[in-house]
Amino acid sequence: MKRSLTPNQALQLINHGPTILVTAVGERGPNIITLAWSTPVSIRPPLLAISVAPSRYSHDLILNSGEFVVNVPNSSLLEQVHLCGTISGRNKDKFKEAGLTPIPANKVKAPLIKECIGHIECKLYAYYTAGDHTIFIAEVVGGSVDEELYDGHLMTDKVEGETLHHLGGNVYAIAGRRVRAR
Amino acid sequence: MKRSLTPNQALQLINHGPTILVTAVGERGPNIITLAWSTPVSIRPPLLAISVAPSRYSHDLILNSGEFVVNVPNSSLLEQVHLCGTISGRNKDKFKEAGLTPIPANKVKAPLIKECIGHIECKLYAYYTAGDHTIFIAEVVGGSVDEELYDGHLMTDKVEGETLHHLGGNVYAIAGRRVRAR
Repeated sequence: MKRSLTPNQALQLINHGPTILVTAVGERGPNIITLAWSTPVSIRPPLLAISVAPSRYSHDLILNSGEFVVNVPNSSLLEQVHLCGTISGRNKDKFKEAGLTPIPANKVKAPLIKECIGHIECKLYAYYTAGDHTIFIAEVVGGSVDEELYDGHLMTDKVEGETLHHLGGNVYAIAGRRVRAR
Repeated sequence: MKRSLTPNQALQLINHGPTILVTAVGERGPNIITLAWSTPVSIRPPLLAISVAPSRYSHDLILNSGEFVVNVPNSSLLEQVHLCGTISGRNKDKFKEAGLTPIPANKVKAPLIKECIGHIECKLYAYYTAGDHTIFIAEVVGGSVDEELYDGHLMTDKVEGETLHHLGGNVYAIAGRRVRAR
């Protein structure tokens, strides 16, 4: 079961830098793009940034729709995550190819990916060109998380809460064990 | 021993979203700030983004000097990382407080932190206000990594290569095991 989060709680789901699946919609339906490059950037208002190459199909879906969802996959979705980062949604239905399930979001038209453990619903706030990519800054308007994997923070120390962190190429590190500073 | 990296290799040291120690210099010497909020944003040129609150002492050091170094700590530096995120360099020498050692960088005046496993030397490229933070975009001009912890990617699966990923509060996830997608 998923439980609702405040925008600031939802923002924190990517505080630890996991690789994410971003969904956005266009005339031909929803698409998924895998991104290693994202970070929260502001608390008031709750903002996050993602960096997307203009050549990617999702780039213009985000620009034109002004909305997207950040979905947090767990480590069991390794092959789906890698697949959605290597094929283009221009000529493939990535939900079908990856065997992932779109379900409605609460605040935006872009769908959630049912198989993911957390979701951050976003509305475009600003964008900047930075080198060969576009930085999209978005306001977090809602979110949810698997209630069994959340104790105020993501419970990466449960197997189902482990997240993927892209080191490069086809290599990912898995974040698991949690530690507390004094 | 550290080995030199090309700027694009160095950029990839934060591809997996580790919590970082950023060093910058001012008239009163170097300072350290712990940041969970960073991401690569461009390949050509190699650019990264960090998000820093204007109230932080390092904010104006970066703005005025136009340079900083991203240092990647391993999991053994948990207490030092947390300390450098909780005290201010305005009235404390964080190198001394945390027991960390500044050593010269190659391309910038800001120092490297000797105890860290990787370093990314950066020159300020652009900056934008986003909500209550400033996004600093910087060009990577050099970098280095512990040669025993690098096989083309960071070897987080060695104990000395494990990285810290801030979940929030005083809680961090540790990235360790590496997996390869097909």
